[in-house]
This record gives sequence, C-alpha cells and structure tokens, in this order.
Amino acid sequence: MQIAVIGVGLIGGSIGLAARERLGASVCGYDPAAGVTESALERGAIDSTAGALAEAVSGAEVIFVATPVGVLIQAVAEVLSSAGEEAVVTDVGSTKREVVAANPDTRFVGGHPLAGMESAGVEHARADLFDGAVWYLTPVGDTAGVAYERIHRVVTGLGARVSAIDPETHDRLLADVSHLPHIFANVLVSQASAALAADDERLPATGPSFRDATRVAGSNSGIWTDIYRSNRDALVERIDSSIARLGELRDALARDDAEWITAWNEAARSDRERLLETDLAGGPVTELRVLVPNRPGVVAEIALELGKAGLNIDDMALYPAPDMREGVVALWIAGAEESQRAAQLLTELGFSVTQI
Amino acid sequence: MQIAVIGVGLIGGSIGLAARERLGASVCGYDPAAGVTESALERGAIDSTAGALAEAVSGAEVIFVATPVGVLIQAVAEVLSSAGEEAVVTDVGSTKREVVAANPDTRFVGGHPLAGMESAGVEHARADLFDGAVWYLTPVGDTAGVAYERIHRVVTGLGARVSAIDPETHDRLLADVSHLPHIFANVLVSQASAALAADDERLPATGPSFRDATRVAGSNSGIWTDIYRSNRDALVERIDSSIARLGELRDALARDDAEWITAWNEAARSDRERLLETDLAGGPVTELRVLVPNRPGVVAEIALELGKAGLNIDDMALYPAPDMREGVVALWIAGAEESQRAAQLLTELGFSVTQI
Repeated sequence: MQIAVIGVGLIGGSIGLAARERLGASVCGYDPAAGVTESALERGAIDSTAGALAEAVSGAEVIFVATPVGVLIQAVAEVLSSAGEEAVVTDVGSTKREVVAANPDTRFVGGHPLAGMESAGVEHARADLFDGAVWYLTPVGDTAGVAYERIHRVVTGLGARVSAIDPETHDRLLADVSHLPHIFANVLVSQASAALAADDERLPATGPSFRDATRVAGSNSGIWTDIYRSNRDALVERIDSSIARLGELRDALARDDAEWITAWNEAARSDRERLLETDLAGGPVTELRVLVPNRPGVVAEIALELGKAGLNIDDMALYPAPDMREGVVALWIAGAEESQRAAQLLTELGFSVTQI
Repeated sequence: MQIAVIGVGLIGGSIGLAARERLGASVCGYDPAAGVTESALERGAIDSTAGALAEAVSGAEVIFVATPVGVLIQAVAEVLSSAGEEAVVTDVGSTKREVVAANPDTRFVGGHPLAGMESAGVEHARADLFDGAVWYLTPVGDTAGVAYERIHRVVTGLGARVSAIDPETHDRLLADVSHLPHIFANVLVSQASAALAADDERLPATGPSFRDATRVAGSNSGIWTDIYRSNRDALVERIDSSIARLGELRDALARDDAEWITAWNEAARSDRERLLETDLAGGPVTELRVLVPNRPGVVAEIALELGKAGLNIDDMALYPAPDMREGVVALWIAGAEESQRAAQLLTELGFSVTQI
C-alpha cells in the first residue's frame, strides 16, 4: 500500500512508523519545515520524501494530512486537488466541522486521533502511539463508502479504535472535555492575578484545587489560538451554556438557597462518578490520600510496595505542604478490592491513609 | 497557658497537640460528637475534656473555635458569651466576613489556617500540621490590640506564619483561588455529562486537562454548601467577574478575532507564571514530561533515580495512555539547574523527556 503523510511531526511520524511496521506500507512524507523529512527518514517514519506536496500525493492510495490546525483547510484542499480519483484523504486535526465543511469531496473523511498531546516533533514519534486510542472519523452524507471503509481499515491497522461521529457533535464534545478546561484555566489564573494586583500583590497560598485547575492555563498560543478559532461555533455555544450554569449558581447564592446549592453539588458529584466510571478501564476508581514526608524516595517507596503487590496506580498527584517538608500523595486505584488492599498495605507501612 | 478548643477534629486536634508540645499549654477540649473528646484525650491532643461548651471555656486564656463552618457563627457567639473578660477568641473557618461581622467583640479575631484540607478527624491530627503554613488573621477596627497580639503569638508558636488581612479581602481571594476552582469543576462535569446524555451516552476519551480540572468536582456537600453560603457575597461578585471574562472571550470567538484570542491566552500564560513563581519556594518550576511504560515500579524507578541525585520532585502527575500500557509522567522540578540535571538523568536512563 502506498501512503502519503503531509506534515511529519509527532502524529504524522507515528502514522508513518506504524504503517510501515504493521501494514507493510510504503510511506512518502512531505513537510515544508527545514530538516523535518530528513529526521523522519532517519527515524524510519517514512521511506521516501517529496520536494512538493503534489509529488508526495501522486500515486498514494491513502493520504494523511497532519499539519497544524491553522493551515489544515488549505492543506486538505491542495491534497484533494492533487490526489488521484481513487485516492482517499483524511486529516488529524483536533476540530472537524470547519475542515469538513470546507472540503466537500467524496474522497475525504475527517479524522482525529486522541493521542500524542504530550509532546511534539517527529523525534518523539512511535509506532505504538495509537494502540488502543480512540480515533474519531467524521463521515458526512456525501462521503464515499469506499473512502470511509479504507480509512477505517488503515486506522484500525495502526492500532486505534475507530469511533464514527458527525463533525458537529465531535466539536461540541471536544469543546466540553478539552477546550473549556483550557478556557476555565485561563479565566482562573487571570482573575486571581488581577485580584492580587488590586490588593498590593498579596498572594494567598493556593491549594491543590487551584493548581490542578490551572495547570493548562496559557498553553502554547501557536497551537491553541487555532484550535479555539477552528471550533468557535461550538465554543460560543458551550461558553453560553457555562455562563448560564454559572448564572444559576450565582442566583442561588444571592438568595442563599442551601437546598439548591446542595442539589447542584450532589449532581456534580454523580456526574463526575459517571464520567470516571465510563472513562477509565477497570471499573470505578478509588482515591486514596497518603500523608508522606516530602523527601526524595518516598513516592518511590509507595510505588514499589504497590508494584510488588501487583497493584497498579492509575493516576497520582503529589501535593506538598506549604513548608515543603510534608505532603499528601493522592493515588487513584482501579477496582474496589485493589484499592482496599492498597490502603491496607500503605497503612501497614506506617502511612496515614484516607479514602476519599 | 490555658487553652480551650471547641470542636476537636483534624484542625482542633492539631492545635491541641502543637499547643501542648510546643507551648506547654494545658488544653481543654469540647466536642458535641460522641466519642471525639475520648479519642482526642487518647491521642494526647487535649489533656482534659468538658461536658459543656461553657465549662471548657471557663478559665481559658485563648479559645480556638474549630467547628464546621455551618455552626461557626453560633459557636463563636456562645464562646464569647461564656468567656471571661480577659480571654481572647479566634476561629479557623475558611471564610471570614460573616463570622467577623456577626461577632463584633473586642476579644475576637477571625482566623484561617491554610492546612489540613486533605483529611478529617482527630485521628489524623499532628503537632506539625501548621509548620510553615500561612495562617490568616482578620482583625478589624474594634479588635483589641492585646487580643490580636496574644493570638498572633500563640499561632506563631504552633509553627504557622501569620498573615493579617481584612475579612472582605480574605474572602474575595479565597473565592478566586479555592472556591471558584470547585465551582468551575462542577460546571465542567455537569456540562459534559449533559452533553453525553443528549448524545446517546457517547463518551469521548477525556484528556489530562479535563481530569485535572474536575478532580474536585462534587466535593463533600456537607462541607462545601456551608463554605459557598458563608462566602456568598464574594462569590456572587467573583462569579459575575468570571461571567464577564467568559463573555469577552465568547465575543472574540464570535467575531473570529485571532489577535484578541492570542493576547488573552498570552496574558493567562504570564499570569500563571507569575502565580507559580510567587507561590512556590525555590524559584520558577520547570515541567518535564517523561514517556513511560505504565507498569508498577516505573514511577518508583524515576523517583529513586532523582532522589539518589538529590533532586526533589515538587509535584507530579501520571497520565496513562488510553490503552493503559503507556503513559506520561509530568514532573515539576524547582530550579533551572536542577530541572536540567533531572532531564539529563532521565534521558540517560533511556526515557524520552520533553521540557514544557
């Protein structure tokens, strides 16, 4: 099979590696940035390069467009105008409505793999990046059946689990679970920062809730401005919905309505449990909080003991106390029995453990 | 010194332990819940108990009211009516405006230690809970100088760093850095959950940003309804401010204003850096992302290696990949030189490391 990859970064490079290793495909890569295709060749992510987009696309059966979101629409259009009648084209952009609407072509199916947000560049590409990852495909009414079927087969061959979804729903859901958390983080830091400035730079010690909620504040503008813009219709709607929800709480607080506030908080509690239970493999996840001295090695000790007992940690966070000498390690363990055993083990080791 | 503690949970018990150990104080405890004072006696958090609040207060020089926020105003009022003319009274509630306004008494100073949110109950009490922690005191115009001075001295003796702040500013800042993150978390989970319900229960895989932002969603209603209510004036104002900020972004998105969106995101970036740099000891913190197999022991390996090199991890989070076989460990390391050494060490161990 002949595959072309336009834009050979982390995602494009990983597609190339997996397609060569697992599907025995020939992969031709094109990237306008200096030196990128050379690195990709060296890493084995592609086996040939092209000096121009049209050249890379020529003769390819499946074409992946893996450029930044900001130039995606244009790149897909160029690919479609160069590609053969029998070729099929997909992309990997994190929003789908715009690129799909701008390229009404029977050969094109929008796509979005949920993988590889942590790092960038072909030097981090891996053949197993997509193993078990959800890969959204967004076919629409005029998508050719053969195009969808072929892309589905290739993406599955790369190790991903395909999930078909219409572009509007995709963008609305991603707005809720990815873009809004970034927006809220920005609002929180800027509001806190403004309050401090107004109050002579006084800084209250911030707790773990603030740090967790603001970790992604001010993420790379080069990437995020384009993501926000490309999903602006869905985001405008979802921000309006958030404003309405905040407004309801505001009114309940203004009239001091304890019953409403409790019901609202309890609803969030069950919503969170439902999301956690559906999202994570292995059933409900229990959170354990372990009081520890904040010294090198203590996290190791805990992880080693749980590891020896065959207990895996799904997720973990360390909250140092203000004096930096002690802290609390939060551990998320899947399975009621497993978390019970973990709590017992850590208690036996002399740690103070609270189950949340 | 004779100290009384009204409400002997984690905070009240830790005050008792520290006051006995470090100040040589006699501590009398009162708690209406069954068995609590017995546990506190056993643990050494108090050296005598009282059958009634008035009895505990009688003869005490310093009285700490450490009840839940919901009954705080009433408890402080009762203490003030029972306490002697020479006694001084403080509380440990997480909001201050209401309790201070409701108890205009020269002997009363509001207080709020930033410690001990992770667990509850006298069984987790520790003499060093407050070491290095910020302890807000909120004197007002009619607070007696001697009351403030005595409470300041005792709180410092418990190991805390006192920060004086007026009640309104305290509540507004805490709204921004503690209460709003909880509110935003609730809004995010409930909105995502509603979107899923509307879309036939389809669940998009959620990334680390969503999980971080929603960890505190639906926190214990027994505690949080009272915190929200007691800070409702500040919260109404801060929610209005958040709504205004969200509205500005919404309008920029609606008119597709790339320049505004980038400037807004860049402002959040520098706000976050400023908050991080001020908040954490040891200067700017660098985030390293390390790609790891998601098996028991690997976090231990990393922590051990950094520990051996004398490099301490300020904060840590593990993001499993959807297939649960691999993941990314985010490490926050204080100090430019230290984070550089950590990155080099981990690279030498064969891990792929990205500096964020």
